[in-house]
Amino acid sequence: MCVPNISEGTNLTVVEEIVDEIRKHKDVILQDYSSDLNHNRSVISYMGEPEAVLEATCHMAAKAYELIDMTKHKGSHPRVGAVDVVPFIPIRDVETFEAVEVARRFGKFVGERGIPVFYHEEAALTPERNKLAVIRKGQYEGMAEKLKDPAWKPDEGPAELNLRSGVTVAGVRGPAIAFNVNLNTTDVSVADHIAKAVRHITGGFRYVRGMGLLLEEKGMVQVSMNFDNPAKTPIPRVVETIRAEAARFGVSIAETELVGTIPLSAVEDIVKYYLQTHAFSSNQIIENALIDSL
Amino acid sequence: MCVPNISEGTNLTVVEEIVDEIRKHKDVILQDYSSDLNHNRSVISYMGEPEAVLEATCHMAAKAYELIDMTKHKGSHPRVGAVDVVPFIPIRDVETFEAVEVARRFGKFVGERGIPVFYHEEAALTPERNKLAVIRKGQYEGMAEKLKDPAWKPDEGPAELNLRSGVTVAGVRGPAIAFNVNLNTTDVSVADHIAKAVRHITGGFRYVRGMGLLLEEKGMVQVSMNFDNPAKTPIPRVVETIRAEAARFGVSIAETELVGTIPLSAVEDIVKYYLQTHAFSSNQIIENALIDSL
Repeated sequence: MCVPNISEGTNLTVVEEIVDEIRKHKDVILQDYSSDLNHNRSVISYMGEPEAVLEATCHMAAKAYELIDMTKHKGSHPRVGAVDVVPFIPIRDVETFEAVEVARRFGKFVGERGIPVFYHEEAALTPERNKLAVIRKGQYEGMAEKLKDPAWKPDEGPAELNLRSGVTVAGVRGPAIAFNVNLNTTDVSVADHIAKAVRHITGGFRYVRGMGLLLEEKGMVQVSMNFDNPAKTPIPRVVETIRAEAARFGVSIAETELVGTIPLSAVEDIVKYYLQTHAFSSNQIIENALIDSL
Repeated sequence: MCVPNISEGTNLTVVEEIVDEIRKHKDVILQDYSSDLNHNRSVISYMGEPEAVLEATCHMAAKAYELIDMTKHKGSHPRVGAVDVVPFIPIRDVETFEAVEVARRFGKFVGERGIPVFYHEEAALTPERNKLAVIRKGQYEGMAEKLKDPAWKPDEGPAELNLRSGVTVAGVRGPAIAFNVNLNTTDVSVADHIAKAVRHITGGFRYVRGMGLLLEEKGMVQVSMNFDNPAKTPIPRVVETIRAEAARFGVSIAETELVGTIPLSAVEDIVKYYLQTHAFSSNQIIENALIDSL
């Protein structure tokens, strides 16, 4: 799966032309795309076999470099290039190392076009380049200067800003899951306490980001979370930690919400955890044969 | 989905010829087929859009009627015809009434060939014909006599046994799930007690069949179950009932086992139940887009 972010979200004719490059590939399934006017940015989501996704991504990027001029780009979201960030996400039988190979082949393709490339997350060549926020620091406007620093020699392409196209970040990450737990109380300090207990930055689980919110119309509070690597920090473990923490305040879980999509592997983990069915495999799901027949 | 049982399990050349009729349909996915020598019987499993499954099933049955002679059939499993029982199973977006329509169109096709047909389970026209065991009573050998009884006038075809092909039973059922719960004790009476508590016939849940077993090599006992309609009697509710019953004996659930396949809708129900995520839909599973693209 690939979820590139491109720096055009106002001229929808241009966005359609770029998305058309994905549509052209009959072996690639376009899942979704959306544009944000204020961010002046679009996110495209598609999937397929690794080779097909790589080819479609190269064609999509070539079209975006052709149509987007970063010297004229304005938008509220941090960005460094016309094709801003290209995360490849291994799903189903694809291993992380295979996705990294695809990301690096995409990076070489971009570098050869004279555009500097940084690899991030699982595709990063050095630990300092893991985090997108660190790479993006200074944004497009600061990149000419940043690239002069030997510490920021790009992983592919010239050590010099491509004025028209900027810089591209390519990498591999797990499929992030947005998952919220709603609690039977209106005391938002309970949600704050629990969010701090489970999120990585304040001592919690490594791959959880989160915050506490008041849901006024529901008369509940929410622990709103992102799971960045559900294989390593699975949802059920965090739900049970929240249940235990909430019980300390005499509060219970009212409901939970899954926002957007979840990979089948995470669903498999939920079933295994709660049913104690350690040998369960998503291959046992009848509909799986439909996918295997593709 | 369709899982016909045909009365040939020893001559595998014949079985292959019959299965080939399914393979020929490129819109139908052959999942599995297996033959049992003692039963002299084969089970085929395939799926696809309702029209495609109906067409493939008619072709498969025609070939089976051509190649199998019931006057020569011997086998240990109860059976009434060359094409013995043809259960259609609605999965994904197919509703039960649509599957019933497919079963009835298949039944008409068979009846027009001069073979008596009984509809069972969800496709039954009268409650007495719901259960396969009741229809099958007397087997092939007793069918000539049974068909003379006005109470057993067939739903399609002549009220007279087709000597070569026998009788065919066609119907619609939910996807049965074989699911076992293993308990941390070697006292099989605990498993017996719990099996009786949860199975329909002794006062338990409507769509559960079950029995207690000793798992000697594991040092555990097992509540071995079949879920005949997981939409109406869902797995998690029964697991939690077993947990509560086991606790009365100071016994806990060691593990569970899912044997064979499970429909995606049942997996959805498990996630919703344990995560309290009432709005969860299997459409949120990333890989679902792969199926929708078919």
